[in-house]
Amino acid sequence: MQHSFFQKTDLMQVATSPYSFHMITAELDHWLRDIGAVEGLLTLLVKHTSASLTIQENADPTVRDDLLTILNELAPEDRDYKHNMEGPDDMPAHIKTMLTNSTLSIPVIEGKMDLGTWQGVYLIEHRAHRMNRFIRLFYAGTNE
Amino acid sequence: MQHSFFQKTDLMQVATSPYSFHMITAELDHWLRDIGAVEGLLTLLVKHTSASLTIQENADPTVRDDLLTILNELAPEDRDYKHNMEGPDDMPAHIKTMLTNSTLSIPVIEGKMDLGTWQGVYLIEHRAHRMNRFIRLFYAGTNE
Amino acid sequence: MQHSFFQKTDLMQVATSPYSFHMITAELDHWLRDIGAVEGLLTLLVKHTSASLTIQENADPTVRDDLLTILNELAPEDRDYKHNMEGPDDMPAHIKTMLTNSTLSIPVIEGKMDLGTWQGVYLIEHRAHRMNRFIRLFYAGTNE
Repeated sequence: MQHSFFQKTDLMQVATSPYSFHMITAELDHWLRDIGAVEGLLTLLVKHTSASLTIQENADPTVRDDLLTILNELAPEDRDYKHNMEGPDDMPAHIKTMLTNSTLSIPVIEGKMDLGTWQGVYLIEHRAHRMNRFIRLFYAGTNE
Repeated sequence: MQHSFFQKTDLMQVATSPYSFHMITAELDHWLRDIGAVEGLLTLLVKHTSASLTIQENADPTVRDDLLTILNELAPEDRDYKHNMEGPDDMPAHIKTMLTNSTLSIPVIEGKMDLGTWQGVYLIEHRAHRMNRFIRLFYAGTNE
Repeated sequence: MQHSFFQKTDLMQVATSPYSFHMITAELDHWLRDIGAVEGLLTLLVKHTSASLTIQENADPTVRDDLLTILNELAPEDRDYKHNMEGPDDMPAHIKTMLTNSTLSIPVIEGKMDLGTWQGVYLIEHRAHRMNRFIRLFYAGTNE
């Protein structure tokens, strides 16, 4: 059966902690339920250049500890950067954003993101501060 | 001319070898032909956190050898990780997944992915074992 | 109100400089205006394996200098690669492409990409030469 074309967008806010992974899987599936999504594509865009998105292991918290350690080694704060006027954590935050994702597109099946059992969707805060971060949500597909 | 809205989804299985790139370009274009895709967007989501997706050079196999070497250096197995209960290859596999892609969205033109001449779509197996991996395929666009 | 389904595609050309970030935000929004986009999803695919896409800080040019420095350290030219027949800059360019993005999907709101204030869309040229690069643009959503 051919359903008609439906799309819906919203802005999601996440209050973050310094250097941390914030799982947003449940909030995203809740939003999909609210809008009556059935089958389609959910796209996320984090509207910042010092925070980013990733799909990662959702069970053992030490995985995120190790990921943060590696990101800090790939983009260390204790080196010289040309861009240093916004604090020692700012340029590393841009690098970490470049090496992960600013956007994600996730298929939605039977009203939920079709993630694997061990997958969660995360916003990663790369700054040393608590921040209010905004993520654009965009769904296109069929609805109830 | 305005075509009607069409979307189709499927689950693709890939039997992998340890630490290796698996080109899936032909299988994806075959699936697009099967469903009668004409112009639209193909989105892929690998449903695992220790395997990932990338678009890379499809001609010289030594390119993939060098890419694997670099990934191993960025996420070495012979170091201490907090998350180590699933073997020395597991945490590096999560890191390599974070540094590459869990999802890809590829425009489809005249029934095929619009890749450049030297581009291929790959699933990368980051674990030390043969695995069965699943990729969610989602096409939205026009059809025949 | 339910709009009808609209999609449009085009090929964008970018004349690059060696090792450099090229901001394409204005050209993309111009194209969206030309096609009468209102609300939808813009997907970009760079049709090369030695150039890539990223969303990054659009204000201070030293951010891009530091990003290029880091990319050069992650994929140095002065080491041995198996794949070396296309010059010392070629294999590093493939690595840099793998660590950044070949595709991006960006929500479009009120006719423009819904980027944050400090976000710009960039093509990154990883080769040591001036090149002509092609990006596939694909918009799906509503139109005027």
